[in-house]
This record gives sequence, C-alpha cells and structure tokens, in this order.
Amino acid sequence: MKVAIIMGSPSDKPVMGKAADALRELEVDFSAWVLSAHRAPEALRAAVSRFEEEGVEAVIAGAGLAAHLPGVIASQTLIPVIGVPIVSGALGGLDALLSMVQMPKPVPVAVVGVDNGANAAYLACRILAVKYPALRERLSRFHCQMQADGASKEEAAL
Amino acid sequence: MKVAIIMGSPSDKPVMGKAADALRELEVDFSAWVLSAHRAPEALRAAVSRFEEEGVEAVIAGAGLAAHLPGVIASQTLIPVIGVPIVSGALGGLDALLSMVQMPKPVPVAVVGVDNGANAAYLACRILAVKYPALRERLSRFHCQMQADGASKEEAAL
Amino acid sequence: MKVAIIMGSPSDKPVMGKAADALRELEVDFSAWVLSAHRAPEALRAAVSRFEEEGVEAVIAGAGLAAHLPGVIASQTLIPVIGVPIVSGALGGLDALLSMVQMPKPVPVAVVGVDNGANAAYLACRILAVKYPALRERLSRFHCQMQADGASKEEAAL
Amino acid sequence: MKVAIIMGSPSDKPVMGKAADALRELEVDFSAWVLSAHRAPEALRAAVSRFEEEGVEAVIAGAGLAAHLPGVIASQTLIPVIGVPIVSGALGGLDALLSMVQMPKPVPVAVVGVDNGANAAYLACRILAVKYPALRERLSRFHCQMQADGASKEEAAL
Amino acid sequence: MKVAIIMGSPSDKPVMGKAADALRELEVDFSAWVLSAHRAPEALRAAVSRFEEEGVEAVIAGAGLAAHLPGVIASQTLIPVIGVPIVSGALGGLDALLSMVQMPKPVPVAVVGVDNGANAAYLACRILAVKYPALRERLSRFHCQMQADGASKEEAAL
Amino acid sequence: MKVAIIMGSPSDKPVMGKAADALRELEVDFSAWVLSAHRAPEALRAAVSRFEEEGVEAVIAGAGLAAHLPGVIASQTLIPVIGVPIVSGALGGLDALLSMVQMPKPVPVAVVGVDNGANAAYLACRILAVKYPALRERLSRFHCQMQADGASKEEAAL
Amino acid sequence: MKVAIIMGSPSDKPVMGKAADALRELEVDFSAWVLSAHRAPEALRAAVSRFEEEGVEAVIAGAGLAAHLPGVIASQTLIPVIGVPIVSGALGGLDALLSMVQMPKPVPVAVVGVDNGANAAYLACRILAVKYPALRERLSRFHCQMQADGASKEEAAL
Amino acid sequence: MKVAIIMGSPSDKPVMGKAADALRELEVDFSAWVLSAHRAPEALRAAVSRFEEEGVEAVIAGAGLAAHLPGVIASQTLIPVIGVPIVSGALGGLDALLSMVQMPKPVPVAVVGVDNGANAAYLACRILAVKYPALRERLSRFHCQMQADGASKEEAAL
Repeated sequence: MKVAIIMGSPSDKPVMGKAADALRELEVDFSAWVLSAHRAPEALRAAVSRFEEEGVEAVIAGAGLAAHLPGVIASQTLIPVIGVPIVSGALGGLDALLSMVQMPKPVPVAVVGVDNGANAAYLACRILAVKYPALRERLSRFHCQMQADGASKEEAAL
Repeated sequence: MKVAIIMGSPSDKPVMGKAADALRELEVDFSAWVLSAHRAPEALRAAVSRFEEEGVEAVIAGAGLAAHLPGVIASQTLIPVIGVPIVSGALGGLDALLSMVQMPKPVPVAVVGVDNGANAAYLACRILAVKYPALRERLSRFHCQMQADGASKEEAAL
Repeated sequence: MKVAIIMGSPSDKPVMGKAADALRELEVDFSAWVLSAHRAPEALRAAVSRFEEEGVEAVIAGAGLAAHLPGVIASQTLIPVIGVPIVSGALGGLDALLSMVQMPKPVPVAVVGVDNGANAAYLACRILAVKYPALRERLSRFHCQMQADGASKEEAAL
Repeated sequence: MKVAIIMGSPSDKPVMGKAADALRELEVDFSAWVLSAHRAPEALRAAVSRFEEEGVEAVIAGAGLAAHLPGVIASQTLIPVIGVPIVSGALGGLDALLSMVQMPKPVPVAVVGVDNGANAAYLACRILAVKYPALRERLSRFHCQMQADGASKEEAAL
Repeated sequence: MKVAIIMGSPSDKPVMGKAADALRELEVDFSAWVLSAHRAPEALRAAVSRFEEEGVEAVIAGAGLAAHLPGVIASQTLIPVIGVPIVSGALGGLDALLSMVQMPKPVPVAVVGVDNGANAAYLACRILAVKYPALRERLSRFHCQMQADGASKEEAAL
Repeated sequence: MKVAIIMGSPSDKPVMGKAADALRELEVDFSAWVLSAHRAPEALRAAVSRFEEEGVEAVIAGAGLAAHLPGVIASQTLIPVIGVPIVSGALGGLDALLSMVQMPKPVPVAVVGVDNGANAAYLACRILAVKYPALRERLSRFHCQMQADGASKEEAAL
Repeated sequence: MKVAIIMGSPSDKPVMGKAADALRELEVDFSAWVLSAHRAPEALRAAVSRFEEEGVEAVIAGAGLAAHLPGVIASQTLIPVIGVPIVSGALGGLDALLSMVQMPKPVPVAVVGVDNGANAAYLACRILAVKYPALRERLSRFHCQMQADGASKEEAAL
Repeated sequence: MKVAIIMGSPSDKPVMGKAADALRELEVDFSAWVLSAHRAPEALRAAVSRFEEEGVEAVIAGAGLAAHLPGVIASQTLIPVIGVPIVSGALGGLDALLSMVQMPKPVPVAVVGVDNGANAAYLACRILAVKYPALRERLSRFHCQMQADGASKEEAAL
C-alpha cells in the first residue's frame, strides 16, 4: 500500500506538503517527485511505468495553470489518479480546476478542491481503505475523533 | 463489490444512465436511487447507513444546482464518494462543480467533469480495481482495446 | 425572539462578528456556534433540533468554499435560514455564493452578499420585525438615522 | 398576512408564476404587479408606500439583467424583500444574481436561486410562519409529505 | 457646463479623485457628493432633482458591489450618466460592472472600465465637447500632446 | 445632429437595427456602415476621418468577440463613442463586454448592455440632448409616456 | 511545407474543417488525424515523432473540455503548435481555452479563438510565410482583396 | 532574423522583460518599444510599417485591460503576432486574455498564457526555427537540457 505524490513544479510543495502530512497522520507510505508533464514528459512516463512494480496503488498529482499532469498520468496507468488544482497567477485556480476536471471519458481524474492537498490525501486513504481494513480502522478513528472535537466545541464568543 | 448510484432528482437520469452503462460494460454490480440531500435528508441518511452491510464499496452521486448530495454523503460514510456535477439552468454547471469540489478537509469528494456520468463509473472501476484483480483485468483489456481503436484511426477526411 | 449564528469554521469569526455587532446594536438576542456541516454533522443536527425549544426564530449561517452549512440546516428545520458566503481561497467567494443560493425547491436559503455578515443580521431583524413591533420600531429609528446621516453629508472634497 | 409579488417586466411572468403557485398551495394571500425600478420609479415608490397599510408582510421581487428592483424596494421599506434573479440574455443570470445579492449594509435583499420563483415563495412562507402558527403548521405538513415522498421512492431504473 | 460626481461610499474617493483630477486638467467645473442609492435614497433624489437648475450637464457615478447608483440616477434624470464600477471585496469588480452595464432600455448608463475614474472624466469631456467648442479645443490639444508623447518614446530598455 | 452606426459584421444587424429603430423613434438622423476594425482598418480610418465634416456628433459601434471596434474608433476621433457588446459564440458576450469596457485612459468607450442596441441609441440621444433642446424635449415626452405606461399597469395576473 | 491538423474527437470535425478550408484556399498542403491525447497517447506520440520526416512545419490541434492535446504535442516536438479551443458542453469553451493557453514555460501553445478553426489556419500561413515567399505573396493578395471588399461595402440598410 | 517586442504601457516591462531574457538566452535579436494602440495609434502604425524593412519576422505584443495591441498590429502586417495578456486591475487578466484571443478571421493573434512573457519568446523561437536551422539547433539543445534537468530531479522531500 503506497501512494505516489507528483507535482509539476517545486513551487507546488507548500500545497502538496499538506497531502504528505495527512498521509503520515494516517500512516500511509508515500514517495514524492517533482515531474512536469510538459518539461519532462519522458521522465514522467518512465516514473509512471514503474508505479505498479513499486506497489503504488493511488497517485496524487498537483499542478497549476494548464495543469495537465494528473490527466497525462491517468492516460498512462489504471491506478486511480487524484488531482489537486493549485492557484498560480491571477485566475484563482479556475484554470487548473477546469483543466483537470473536464477529462474525456474513459480517462477520469478524481479532482479535489483548489489548493486542498490535504483532501487529496484523505481521498487516497478512502480509496485504499476499500482494500485495507487496518487503514479503514485508522480512518474511522480519525473521523470519530473529528466528530467528537466538533461536537465538544463551546459556543463561539463573537 | 458493488457501486451505489444516487442522484438528486429524476431529471438527472440521462447523465447517470451513462454511469450505469459503463458499469454494466465492465460487469460491476450497482444499485441506483433518487434521493435528494435536501428534500429527503432522513431517507438519504438511512440509505447511506445501509451501504456497508450491503457491500457498497464506492458511491457515485450526481446533482445539479447547489449539488450538496455527494458532500453530504461523504460526511456520513468513509466509502469513497464520486461527484458528477450536472448542468441545470443557465450557469453551465459551474454552480454544481464548485459546490462539489470545494469540500473542506477531511471530507473529500472525487469530482469528475460536468455531466460526465461515464467518467464517474470509470473512476469507480479504477478505485475498485485496486482491490479486485479481475476487474483490473477487464479494465486493462478495455483500455487496450481503446488504444488500439485510437491508433487504427484512418486519417480524417476534412 | 432569538437568532442563532452558526459558522462552519473558527476562521469565519471576523465576518460573523459583524453580524453579532449588528444584532447587539438592534438589541436582538443571539447565540453563536462553530459547527461544520461536514466535520460535525451529528452535532449540527442535534443543535438544529434544539432550536425551537430554545426560541430561535431565525438562523444566520456563514461558510466558505463548498458552503453547504445553511442549506443543510434549512433541510432540517422550517426556521428561516440566512446564508453568508465567505471568501476562502482564491475564487473570490463565488464558490460559496453559488453553493448557497442555488438550493432546490422547496428548501430555500436567504442569501446575502459575500462576506456581508452585517446584512445577514439586518435581514434577520427585518424578518423578526414582521412579528415584533418593538424591534420594528428600533429598526425604523435606525433607518431614519441612517437616512438623516446620508442626507447631511457635505459635498465631498476630491 | 399578505405577500406582494413584483416583477420588472411582463417577460418575468413564467418564473414569478411559480412563486404564485407555491403561495396558493400554502394558502398565502398575495397580489402581483409589473413595475420596473427604472421605467416606472415613481409608480414603484407609490406602490411600496402603500404596502404597509395593505398588510403586506413580505415582498418577492423578480428581475433580470441589472436587476435593481429588489434592492430599490428594500431601500424604501423595512418589510423583508426576497429577490429572484431571472435569466435574460446570454450571461446565465449571473448579472442579475450579483446585482441583487451584493447589496450594501444595512439594506439586505434575501436572494434565492436563479429563476427559482418557487423557492422565493417558500422562503416567504418560512418568514411569515415565524409569526403565524397556522401557516407554520401547513408548511410543516407540506415538508413531512415531501420527506415521505422522497423516502418512498423506489430504486431508480437506469 | 458642469459635471456632478457622485459616489456611493467615502471609500470610493481614491477612484473618483482620478475623475476630479482629469476634469480639473481639462478645466471642467464639477461638484462632488457621497450619496448612497440605498442608504440615502431621498437625499439622492433631492440632489438629482436640483441638477438641472444647477447647470449639471453630465453625471459621473461610481459605486461598488451591487452598484445601483448610476442606474437609479439615470431613472430620475435625462442628463447622461456615466458609471464607474469600483472593486470592493473579492469578486474583482465584476459584480459592479454587471450591475451597471446591464440596464434595461430605455434607461442607459454609459459604463467605463473597472476603477477607471479618469476615463469617466474623459468621457464626460467628450460628451460636453459636442456642445462646447472651447472644451473640444482643449481636449484636442490634450490628445495631440498625448500622441506626441507616445510617438517620442525611446525604444524600451528590457 | 447626426449619429453614425458602425458594426463589425453583417451578422450584427439584428442588434444594431434596434439602435436604428430607437433613433428613428426620436427623430435623430443617422447613417450605418459595416466596417471591421481588423478586416478593413484603412476603410474604417477613412470613414472616421470624414465624421466631423459630415456632422456626426455621436458614434454607436457594435461588435462581438474581441470587439475592438469602438475602442479603435475612439482612438481616432474625439466624438463620443458608444459600444454595444454583441453575443457571438458561447462566451455569452463577456468577451465583447470586457474588450470594450476596459479601455485605457484617456480613450474611453461608453459601454451599454450586451446586445442592447436600443440603449445605445437612447444614450446617444441623452448625449445629443445636452446640446439640442428640441431633442431633449422629445426625449422628455418619451420618458413621461413610459412612466405613465408603467404606472397604469394593472395588477399582473399570475 | 505542410501542416498537420489533429483533433481530439470526430465531433471536432466541423470546427477543424474550417481550418482545412482556409489552408486549401491558400494552397497549403495538410494532413488530418483524429488522435486523442488521453485515449490514444501512444498513437499520438508515434504520429508526432513522424512529423519531421514528413515535412510538417506547423501543427494545428483542436480539442474541447480539458483540451490537453496541443500542449501534449508541444511537449513532444519543437514544431510550432496552434491550439483551437472547441466548445463542448455548457461551459462555453472557457475550459478548453484555459487548458490550452496557460501552458508552463518553455512549452508554448499559440492559442486562437474558441471554435475559430479558420484563424488557426491563417496563423499557420503567417508562420510558414516567414520562410516561404510564395505563400507570403498569396497571403498578401488575400488580405488586399479582403481590405478591398471591406472598403467597398455599401452603407448598411438598417 | 529579428523579433519586435511591443508593450502598451511602461508598467508591462516586468512581464515583457521575461520575453527579452528568453530571446537573449536563445541568441535571437530583438528591439523593444512602448507604444499604445489607443494613445499613440499613428506612431504604432508607423512603427509597424517599418517592421519589414527592418527584418522583423515575429512580433510579441503585451498589453493589459482591453489589450487591443496585438490585434491592431495583426491588422496592419502579415508578420505573425504573439499576444501576451497582462494582469492589470482585479479581473485576473481574463479581460486581456479574451480581448486578445477572440480575434475575427482572418486576423489571428497567437495568444500565450497570462503574464507569460517567456512563453511568448519561446513561441517566437519555434516560429523562427521553421526557417532558421541554427536557431532550431539551439532550441533543441535547450529542450534536451530541460528534459535532462527534469529527469535528474531527486525525489521531493515533503
């Protein structure tokens, strides 16, 4: 059980670091690379082709602007690919969101919210938890704790 | 191995029928319901609470407008939830897309393209294929066939 | 006569504090909670179910991103629910606005402007003033004063 | 207990007729006028000034394009004003939505979804039900019936 | 020959000050007021009704958010009204732009660019120059100077 | 007193015909040409250079897509230029609106609503009425009639 | 001198046929293929790798939705790639436009207007005309004819 | 072999400086001017008319707001024109992007990403490389180096 985190540019690290943090929190192993779909297409293809032998079972790909990265990966493997649109420049991430989510059938990308690296990790955990009961158990405890924390909140002072 | 298809309104059937077709094509069992997050919240909660005992391992939820359906389901189960934003009215589905994709952590929805019910099904298959080698095999044959079809295309007459 | 202010996240306090200020200014009693529709759905449901016995007659719910909070509350009570879309991230609050306003019938949310917590309070006062003449009187004096202030403005020096 | 329905143009009738239908369904009395904020500002002002003596306790105002109608009314009365943005032309109603919802404090408009005349009526009923227990009762029965209908839905055939 | 500058809020002064500067540069007399269409509708109406006797021949109205100000003025006078959409909040001024420009016939507003107070003044000058040859002369010299400045620009050092 | 109507393409005639109708209604003389800023820049420049000797005192320019026409004209004359953004293709006229309205100082275009040829004509009349009292008189009668029509409207049957 | 026209789907033929028509009109040789970046990535790569030996000197790539096609081609060759965003679904082609134009450096795509296959061809001709004087000559005659046609236009009857 | 860089305003220098840097890196000669399409139309026309005798074979034009500059140039020459939309004000560059890309046939502009001056230069190099083998060689080495750099990237530390 292993997740691959790929980002298109070193500037994506703050967002993708949130994905790494969440995976660590739920004890899911991962590797991370900076590999651009357009600046290093051959290196990306080589990396994707090694995913299966390395035991990768979910991919998290973050990118900004035209943000083709997760779609290009999804066209090269059958492992589920989660896309994180990242704000870059002045269009608010709408460019990356639309570039990721509007994939043609039958090559889907599972897109989460703009700059929401953490949710990409939680989605990867939900996906892997279908197969791995122990992860399912950890995820369940994490959610129970979250609900308990939410319920115990005092009234807000305004 | 079973998928639950839920839609917010009977008018979503044409889009969600594409999801059903794709699941049949890949021999994945599914059930389908019309259950609104806002008009029938109790019935929805009851349905979601039965998912696990019924063996549901992925949910596909399609909705238009405010499109809270997949997010509400994701707050009630740990099964991965795939959201299909559906065009309704004149805003081009941008309303449903943003309502689905911008979920707060740690409650992700895996969003696919606007009106793209088929891609929701293919994403569900990728997710289930992590666990089920036979489905992985069918998915792989389907993609090889697609690539072969794509490669064999004659030059286009324009 | 009481208003409940609910926000999805502690980071919403600066906006919702403006609602609290306006309610105090018009001498309307209120309570305030931080309760996420997705991170604490059960606690939210429990809170909403207590509204009526606690005399709550209007709800103000503020949230950012997918912003399902006011819609989820409106599906659980018949008390009028006012939604405040809050800017979070780079999409300018358009995500929260569309997620709140495009509710399906017959479950309306009364949406005010992006980050406009004060207007949510003034709308709550208009709603409660239908029933309570004394509040109507206070609101009327407040508006007369505002019109007088507006009319007495000197020419602007530019 | 009475609602005033005002629309900016005769072409808004199909949308506002849905508001009228919903008010009839819940036995709420209403009157309806076509009065443009810009083409008939004096007639509009005269109409608004008569609202209170006529017992109007909620206003539903629908308009397209610049859609100033509900905001202009809200600047002339303290009765709660509900705005219905109506699609007109090619911008999908986004023009009317933003023109209505972004009102300055302390002059709020309670905005519902684009072209959603029915939800404006249901919101008016929620507002009036704060004061009128019999309407609250009818609204409650209506929602119970809706929930029961929603829960009884068969599985969808896809 | 006189221009009236009206703004909806004191916070609009930086933008509207650019209009004042441009009018001074072209020796056009003006007065300026802060008058909200929604917070001071009566004072605004009174001010507009005095425009003609005061010799106002063009109005420049700047506002943010719902930005009804120029449209409301245009419904109360036949003097040409120029609208300046002003950025306020996170929607980039698109709200103010659409609220101003999408006026129904036959009540036009002449809209210039977002936050472009200077262009509103130059447009007022073009309008007044139709009637006043001396202003036309000043405007012509100003444009000749601008073209000469533009043509004399050295190659840019990059 | 004469208005020039210019459109970028013969397909703009239905929208610009509304401008012509409104000018005829108010007895304002006009000429109309199809002249593209990009396909016929020299012919356009020649036409603009003849405007003054032909007595043109206001220009109405309609265009779709990149819609540079009114801005290019405004850079070649000091006559006030009114821009009509026209819907062409699938972007709802937002392309033409932004291309027209966001002109740099000091070269303003007076932009009216998308596809609103009639309002361009009414704006031209307001501009010319500053100089011509008889037109002002006709415009005033037209507006009084409009207000009377608006006020005499029966209650709407819904 | 040869152009390659590639489209992502057979449904793109009506738009790309306009590119073919324009190339024929200017006597530029071309071939056309249907090759999806995601459904046939290997076949696409093989086709791109043959471009140089086949004498292709400009590529026109049209696609809708996520529209990665021209960017993926540009990452595999140094031949200039022109992208045509094609409307597909309800987002007006904004998805395809942003997916194409926001490419990371140093992998540019030369994007033309939504659904504007003809302009892609005219851009290809401008690019090839830098090298080929005879094409430059044909293009020049074509533009002179266009200018003459534009200038000879009668006044428009409105 | 020479490129002309033109920008509409001195404030565009930071973006266009990236174009200059990239051209220097690939040893392509260029000149740069500040010339506004609207403030200096005659000077711009004079400059464009000298391009051919000066050996200019590609134009890079950057502008913000209405951003007519590249389109106006393209209507005056057959040299390929590359447009760089530049963010100015609060609309995120969407105004400049649409103003540039939606050009009518047969007058195309080759548009690159918002604020992406570097990509404009790389596109100019691809265009010139069709004719000049030595530049093609330099561009090829540059891309090989980029691919090698991309492939040699260590795993990212997150």
